[in-house]
Amino acid sequence: MKSALLALLLASSPLAAQQPVAPPPGGPTTATRPRATPLPVAPDPKAARLRDQAMSDDTAYALVEGLTTEVGPRMTGGSARQAYARDWAVARLKALGFKNVRIEPYTLHNVWERGAETAEIVGLYAQPLHVTALGNTGATPAAGLTAPVVYFPTFNDLLLAPAGSLAGKIAFVSNAMEPTQDGSSYGSAGSARFVGPNVAAQKGAAALVIRSIGTDHGRGPHAGTTNFDAGVAPIPAGALSVADAENLERMLKLGKPVTMKLTLTPRFVGDRESGNVVAEVPGTDPRAGIVLVGGHLDSWDLGTGAIDDASGVAITAAAAKLVMDAGRPRRTIRVVWFGDEEIGGFGGEAYARAHAGEYHATASESDFGADRVWRFETNFGPAAKPIGDRLAVTLAPLGIVRGTGTAGDGTDIAPVVKTGVAGVDLNQSGLRYFDYHHTPEDTLDRVDPAQLRQNVAAWTTMLQIVANAPESIEPVPPRR
Amino acid sequence: MKSALLALLLASSPLAAQQPVAPPPGGPTTATRPRATPLPVAPDPKAARLRDQAMSDDTAYALVEGLTTEVGPRMTGGSARQAYARDWAVARLKALGFKNVRIEPYTLHNVWERGAETAEIVGLYAQPLHVTALGNTGATPAAGLTAPVVYFPTFNDLLLAPAGSLAGKIAFVSNAMEPTQDGSSYGSAGSARFVGPNVAAQKGAAALVIRSIGTDHGRGPHAGTTNFDAGVAPIPAGALSVADAENLERMLKLGKPVTMKLTLTPRFVGDRESGNVVAEVPGTDPRAGIVLVGGHLDSWDLGTGAIDDASGVAITAAAAKLVMDAGRPRRTIRVVWFGDEEIGGFGGEAYARAHAGEYHATASESDFGADRVWRFETNFGPAAKPIGDRLAVTLAPLGIVRGTGTAGDGTDIAPVVKTGVAGVDLNQSGLRYFDYHHTPEDTLDRVDPAQLRQNVAAWTTMLQIVANAPESIEPVPPRR
Repeated sequence: MKSALLALLLASSPLAAQQPVAPPPGGPTTATRPRATPLPVAPDPKAARLRDQAMSDDTAYALVEGLTTEVGPRMTGGSARQAYARDWAVARLKALGFKNVRIEPYTLHNVWERGAETAEIVGLYAQPLHVTALGNTGATPAAGLTAPVVYFPTFNDLLLAPAGSLAGKIAFVSNAMEPTQDGSSYGSAGSARFVGPNVAAQKGAAALVIRSIGTDHGRGPHAGTTNFDAGVAPIPAGALSVADAENLERMLKLGKPVTMKLTLTPRFVGDRESGNVVAEVPGTDPRAGIVLVGGHLDSWDLGTGAIDDASGVAITAAAAKLVMDAGRPRRTIRVVWFGDEEIGGFGGEAYARAHAGEYHATASESDFGADRVWRFETNFGPAAKPIGDRLAVTLAPLGIVRGTGTAGDGTDIAPVVKTGVAGVDLNQSGLRYFDYHHTPEDTLDRVDPAQLRQNVAAWTTMLQIVANAPESIEPVPPRR
Repeated sequence: MKSALLALLLASSPLAAQQPVAPPPGGPTTATRPRATPLPVAPDPKAARLRDQAMSDDTAYALVEGLTTEVGPRMTGGSARQAYARDWAVARLKALGFKNVRIEPYTLHNVWERGAETAEIVGLYAQPLHVTALGNTGATPAAGLTAPVVYFPTFNDLLLAPAGSLAGKIAFVSNAMEPTQDGSSYGSAGSARFVGPNVAAQKGAAALVIRSIGTDHGRGPHAGTTNFDAGVAPIPAGALSVADAENLERMLKLGKPVTMKLTLTPRFVGDRESGNVVAEVPGTDPRAGIVLVGGHLDSWDLGTGAIDDASGVAITAAAAKLVMDAGRPRRTIRVVWFGDEEIGGFGGEAYARAHAGEYHATASESDFGADRVWRFETNFGPAAKPIGDRLAVTLAPLGIVRGTGTAGDGTDIAPVVKTGVAGVDLNQSGLRYFDYHHTPEDTLDRVDPAQLRQNVAAWTTMLQIVANAPESIEPVPPRR
């Protein structure tokens, strides 16, 4: 903790923030070390002024409040409330003064829809458990499925289970997840959800339940999507709340057989219409490329999608408005509120198809909550490197450190980034994010207005500098 | 905060803890001030030894873990799981070595049982809200009741509503609750639940929803009971989660009509058998009276009843066992795990009826969670005053301060205390309690093992001193 704090304080000095600085002996190492004393870089004065202005701007909070209050859950997958959210978004973005505000429709295929979902232990330890079905999974009979529970402390233990050993059983994978600032624990702990149902199905399991992929200890299960290999029939699969998973583990450790009755009745409802909402700040130089920013408008249905991702659409729009109001930028800023990120990134794919011929200078996505930005990343080519240096010194007063050069992260911008567009990432702290992610608890009160403003300040700084940079921003080697 | 910390540190000195000490000028005042320097009092050496032993004893945690894992929710009102909990309790209390372990049955009349419970906003702001029915309330039609919402920021505003003004409406009372160490905010904020439905019914409301009586900001609604005056027909009434109540307030403040569809289908199912579980540590002197301690075995059904009140039954039993194992006490210690506290204190009433002829020296109840004891209270008569002084100096190392002399608190011991039995109260901190009280979040992980051990140490100290005191413990004026 102390080292991290020290790094953060050092980062507040523009010089130190410009490039990674060698840590003191005995401390943690960094991936790159400077070979010589870095040259001084002047902060961008107009971006600095807008950055400070953003720190008292509540446009983003008003958008998050509106989306969670007036629209509420905007279930991914072309739901009626998602359609209403698009209309609401168009009205708000027009009212904010954006140009070319429109819905770009697309079709979703074979949409998954939640049904009933209950779980209970039957027999000696009879009690209800809190469960939610995972996206794209199959259904139990309407009257439920009652079967013995087989316990796998970790996903790796499930992988080690012999073929066929799970026939007629409910597999239970319970690996825990620790919070990480960069969110990297989602990748490791998340395997139980991302591919657990597919693995359990291949081993013959009647169903799978997992400990929610979350860092809380509450009763709200964490929703989320999964996928099955071609030819593997989806089995019923759900996430237990962390508290319920821990209770089930305690039961299993008592050494007697434990039986669960699981009722999950999702279904595939065919094709549905959905869409992305697009708004623009037209630039003065059409040949300089588009600066693409955004988040996703859809949400899981258990909460009201405040941190995931009303915050992301709000942050990017509020920042674009601050830049717009300060004078027309060189590059067009395009704000996209993507549809259907949660169920498979279909909004991002539709956007990339619809805009395949356009020159995007950069692409950036905000989809990691509302907590403060702690790091930024760019992967600019040689001509645009000075933009990164100006970003470093102008973002530093917000306590933002420079990363190691891997950029272009995000489900919705991935199809664009894959074509060789440069990424500019503003990384939010993930230390609280997975307490609420995809749960009923993702509500407005999880958004800290002060941290949300810091996000807007960071994005305003970034947009002002990148959209107005005199340098060329060339394609980069596509991200692996 | 500083003043409270200072008082706590001062309390760690036995002399200072013996009686309230005059605060420094400018600080908060206390209800009583010493008139002279207090006389020194020797701590009870055997109680001190047992107290320190209790700080590494996990009997209580094992009981809480067992009740929440093996039994789970033990719905108040003579439910099947409550009956199983009694059998489980008898087996555990016998295994711990208690004598005369038994179930004392009684009959509950006109039992209320939960049904379906959903709430949603319909129309413009359509979204689901999390709700739970309040005990003893009426039902909506099975298909739900759809009606406009009338907003009352506080319970007092509901009281001010003109007679008949709520006809065909759903009244919504949304007073917030702040945490207090002594739990006193439950009394003031709680009126919305305790008598709100009765008031709304008398003013003609079709139904009532309240902001949960809780200090959290989550999605779990807080259950709890209410009552209607004779002749007032119960209306449907439920508690929204705090997050949902805040969302509904935001909708209402937008100035347009808001309509709710509420479905609550509880019913009254007639008479049911229930019971108290009793265990004893027989004393050497039958004429010295019974030291009555306990908590309640039933729970609300949304959580697993860990802090309410598996902790209370566990703390009192674990303390009684430590005293029992250290040698037979003078007075009989009777541990009662009361049934049906939640729905109306019927276990306590049944106990008082069944034991009306017996001489109880003291009565004490643990029913305020599992967080640390911060204060103790006694209302001993003159002959027993020295017992209070010994308690003060022997409890002081646990950071426990002496209160101002109002004792005998608790729903289950109230019928006994009303007959003039002295109370000895060990007050737990309420600063976290109403985050989880009666919610789905009342699960094992809310119990801090270290604080639970401090509780056991306090109760062990109390039982060792009170059960063995050579003084007479006479009746006191009954509590108002």
